Amino acid sequence: MTPPFITFEGPEGAGKSTQLARLAARLAEAGVPHLVTREPGGTPLGTRVREVLLDPALSIDPLPEFLLYSASRAQLVAHVIRPALARGEVVVCDRYADSSLAYQGFGRGLGAAFLADLTREVTGGLVPDLTVLLDLDPAVGLSRAASRGAPDRLERADLGFHTRVRGGFLTLAARDPARFLVLDATRDVDALAGDIWRAVEERL
Amino acid sequence: MTPPFITFEGPEGAGKSTQLARLAARLAEAGVPHLVTREPGGTPLGTRVREVLLDPALSIDPLPEFLLYSASRAQLVAHVIRPALARGEVVVCDRYADSSLAYQGFGRGLGAAFLADLTREVTGGLVPDLTVLLDLDPAVGLSRAASRGAPDRLERADLGFHTRVRGGFLTLAARDPARFLVLDATRDVDALAGDIWRAVEERL
Repeated sequence: MTPPFITFEGPEGAGKSTQLARLAARLAEAGVPHLVTREPGGTPLGTRVREVLLDPALSIDPLPEFLLYSASRAQLVAHVIRPALARGEVVVCDRYADSSLAYQGFGRGLGAAFLADLTREVTGGLVPDLTVLLDLDPAVGLSRAASRGAPDRLERADLGFHTRVRGGFLTLAARDPARFLVLDATRDVDALAGDIWRAVEERL
Repeated sequence: MTPPFITFEGPEGAGKSTQLARLAARLAEAGVPHLVTREPGGTPLGTRVREVLLDPALSIDPLPEFLLYSASRAQLVAHVIRPALARGEVVVCDRYADSSLAYQGFGRGLGAAFLADLTREVTGGLVPDLTVLLDLDPAVGLSRAASRGAPDRLERADLGFHTRVRGGFLTLAARDPARFLVLDATRDVDALAGDIWRAVEERL
């Protein structure tokens, strides 16, 4: 049996990194072999593409932005995620294809069918078994992210954009309730970690 | 009337840069407003993507390779090529979509229909009015390129790959003879420049 592929989604400042680290620690305690990775990044190519995407000095249109995320994703799926699942490791990924659908689709207005078709090509149809969506009012998320230092290219987008992205994530979750665990990111960190662990345990 | 969009294609070492410079000089002499650009590159984003694509230390699968070229192309078409044509300038581009069809399609084996569909999306259907194909035996081209210094990531691919790419370019040219001017790159530089200028003049 292939172990579960788990993704974390949500806006900047929702606490994805914290919850991802908590889950990784819990998997380690339980002796479950696992691999933690992220998007964009996770491979030498992905790391280079990540630097380009997050550079605040660069102007990048929605379409090339999506293509760069997709390039990083294709390399990550082929060289990191699929091999780890084949070795029997749980894979936990900070962001995945749902981010493209939410940010470049709902946020920037690229066509949903085009995004879905290219994403299927790029992932070879690999869909997560569990997607944890940490839902947060974008105004709260942005102020949390801002308190951590200079904003990157995406964090500088306007509130209207981030509001569309949030609606996009919630729409994706409503379409696939068996895959998505939607959590209120303002809740207590321990309580959230407990809910996430229960959802992961069910899939182990 | 929109001025012509002219592309140069062919393998490394075929003399594209030389002929492109000769054409630019001829256009300048004739007082024709023109813009010279190249792929990948031509925009701040494209320059960054070019560095990634040509880095010999990086391993890049065919699909993300194509997506990176496409990202650079989308930004270039929207921000450089279309605005220049709209201003009434002849645009001369060192490589364009035919390179993706030849290198990632015929060379690396990505599906032609997939490449064509995404390319149409990325270029908004912008096809060159004239494509100069400098055709050259790949063994000759590679030894010419090697004499110029350390090979980049593409130049290090094997001869079989470059032979498939050459066949790809010739196939594309045979399918669209009205657009392509196929020239034997081993001919005299002045003679080639003359043939290219005549083909350009016809389209001015």
